Amino acid sequence: MPQFAQRMKTMEKSANIIKGLFGAMNDPGLISFGGGAPAREALPVDIVREIATDIIRTDKKGVEALQYGSVMGLPELREVVVNDLLAPKGVNAKAENILITSGGLEGINLLCQIYIDPGDIILVESPTFVHCVEIFEMFEAKCIAVDMDQNGMVTEDLEAKIIKHKPKMVYVIPTFHNPTGRTLSLERRKTIAGLGSKYDVIILEDDPYRDIRYSGSDLLPIKSFDKTGHTVLANSFSKIFSPGSRLGYVLASDEITSKLFDAKTATNSHTSMLPQVICAEFFKRGYYPQHHKKICDLYRQRRDTMIECIDKFFPEGTKRTFPDGGLFTWAELPGGINTTDLLVESTANPHVKVVYVAGEGFFTQGGGMGSNCMRISFGSVDPEKIRTGIERLGSLICSKLK
Amino acid sequence: MPQFAQRMKTMEKSANIIKGLFGAMNDPGLISFGGGAPAREALPVDIVREIATDIIRTDKKGVEALQYGSVMGLPELREVVVNDLLAPKGVNAKAENILITSGGLEGINLLCQIYIDPGDIILVESPTFVHCVEIFEMFEAKCIAVDMDQNGMVTEDLEAKIIKHKPKMVYVIPTFHNPTGRTLSLERRKTIAGLGSKYDVIILEDDPYRDIRYSGSDLLPIKSFDKTGHTVLANSFSKIFSPGSRLGYVLASDEITSKLFDAKTATNSHTSMLPQVICAEFFKRGYYPQHHKKICDLYRQRRDTMIECIDKFFPEGTKRTFPDGGLFTWAELPGGINTTDLLVESTANPHVKVVYVAGEGFFTQGGGMGSNCMRISFGSVDPEKIRTGIERLGSLICSKLK
Repeated sequence: MPQFAQRMKTMEKSANIIKGLFGAMNDPGLISFGGGAPAREALPVDIVREIATDIIRTDKKGVEALQYGSVMGLPELREVVVNDLLAPKGVNAKAENILITSGGLEGINLLCQIYIDPGDIILVESPTFVHCVEIFEMFEAKCIAVDMDQNGMVTEDLEAKIIKHKPKMVYVIPTFHNPTGRTLSLERRKTIAGLGSKYDVIILEDDPYRDIRYSGSDLLPIKSFDKTGHTVLANSFSKIFSPGSRLGYVLASDEITSKLFDAKTATNSHTSMLPQVICAEFFKRGYYPQHHKKICDLYRQRRDTMIECIDKFFPEGTKRTFPDGGLFTWAELPGGINTTDLLVESTANPHVKVVYVAGEGFFTQGGGMGSNCMRISFGSVDPEKIRTGIERLGSLICSKLK
Repeated sequence: MPQFAQRMKTMEKSANIIKGLFGAMNDPGLISFGGGAPAREALPVDIVREIATDIIRTDKKGVEALQYGSVMGLPELREVVVNDLLAPKGVNAKAENILITSGGLEGINLLCQIYIDPGDIILVESPTFVHCVEIFEMFEAKCIAVDMDQNGMVTEDLEAKIIKHKPKMVYVIPTFHNPTGRTLSLERRKTIAGLGSKYDVIILEDDPYRDIRYSGSDLLPIKSFDKTGHTVLANSFSKIFSPGSRLGYVLASDEITSKLFDAKTATNSHTSMLPQVICAEFFKRGYYPQHHKKICDLYRQRRDTMIECIDKFFPEGTKRTFPDGGLFTWAELPGGINTTDLLVESTANPHVKVVYVAGEGFFTQGGGMGSNCMRISFGSVDPEKIRTGIERLGSLICSKLK
């Protein structure tokens, strides 16, 4: 058979990590703190049923939902993004700068498509979201890790690495970061936007969790401080509406948007229409505020239970983050426990049967970084199961320290 | 601003052609023989309404339609592809070798993602589908044209060019070819599958029109003659169900499928669930045969009207194809008329107001090839308007020959 493209080699490692993730997520016999899927209770099934029935009733809307649509996305949905999602967060945007994508990740893919040549450098947080690393590696970029602390990416280290490595792009998940749940401070948001402009580097702000905050107060996006068009904001409807709909959006400057148009055309022409029509209607009918409150209340309770149980059942010396929103907490275990090895046991042991994501895969630099860490997702597990799962996982961990 | 990736340069020309196409298609004041969109009467709006109402009624199906799904696509839809679409066409496939894509074009994109390095050669028909050329050029492939005659790609020329250029891939639209409406003969289908195996070249069979045939008899796909896994079949639900749903599929060998999985994961994780659930149900409830008959009857009438009117109103010396299915006919005008120049007049002249697609853009070799040709789509225009539009366009053409 003909040789596969070079990029299939460079993405192999991260692709294998992802394959492992997807595999474990779907085993119904396990308590899964693994995936980043929303709770099924957080999916607006009843509202979608009502809207779908209504909109396909009229022939005009029905045809719109089934016929070819525009590359940039449904105009109404782009208006929703501008007015309902961005304006309240302090971002002034025009609908013509919004491209609707097939999920938030596609925005990342398209931005790589237009900017990344093989060998280009992308600076990423340490740790960072492994699924995006897979995308970066498919584009044969080289990822270099920038230090993080409890306030997110360390901007001094970022600036030093921009100067040293001359990256094409900086990838940041500023709010309720995946995998750590941490949030980038306001001061650093300003600084990062400024560094993009100063050093002529694209800042890719990936912000899918920002709208599900359970405590603390909203921070302006990096994009709101961007004066030169170097920051590109990618976001998703997965956490606030439905992940299966595969809806996301990118906000970028005119120049970048025009190239994103070309890349989107050559990827899949446009995003599926029926989900776009339904999602736009979901906002236009005013369902979002009540739905948003409902899911935030739901997740807040799960987060609180998760934190309480980790503090109760995990061994002394465990460090964990306290996420003000999003779906993840991050724990660092004491005593040199290797979480990759532990995962084999925690899934196979009939007294545990718990899945999480081992920390190592989130560190692009390798070298055993994060080998004592785990990403624990609380979004899709009900409080009672969180209690059971964390108690079991905690005993397993404690048993290793004896 | 940072420099765009190299691929944005190589795709520029075809991207501009596509942008022109999309622009003209949407002007409601024109009679458009331009786009390849299905008729609005061919969209199963009533059936989709019924299904959507039903399936979102049950919580299980509702959650399935809104939650994350599998990278490979909805299992039921992959079974539909195997049993309802491929088996009747003489292709024996297993569901595990079917990847559901976001429209047929995404399959082409993903196959390039896994196979094409910059500088790789792709052999294409002359003329060929410009939208796919855009994809090939985004992957920095070099397209080389292979001769066509009324029976499709000329296999002697194909073999000579395989030997000469050592391509990575051959791109063929075998049935009711875009833009010409021609169909590749059975003998040549066998030959092309064999050439793929013999010379270790991927044969990309793009077959979105094959299921809408109005006359003549079905021919086995190239894939049915593939003994080595070199042929990859990409297809689409756009013409038989709904283009706005963005649903397509790829049938490939185990080895290729495993890489397509990685590329799909790093593109948009999976295809939107609600359209997949509805489309699978459309087939499972047995609606397809009656819908298929309805749309074939509708398009047959339009094709017949189109052919009749071209023969009546276009000048003597015009050559046109007679498509047994699909959405396009292709006309070659006499007297050195330049169809790119003519298009400016045919859209602007208030007595004409007709859009078609000028032929030149479909020829990758340039040099004025196809400058007297036009692609005329009859799918989305009702017979009366076809008559009006072709009469007007015919008079304009005749006026140029005086």
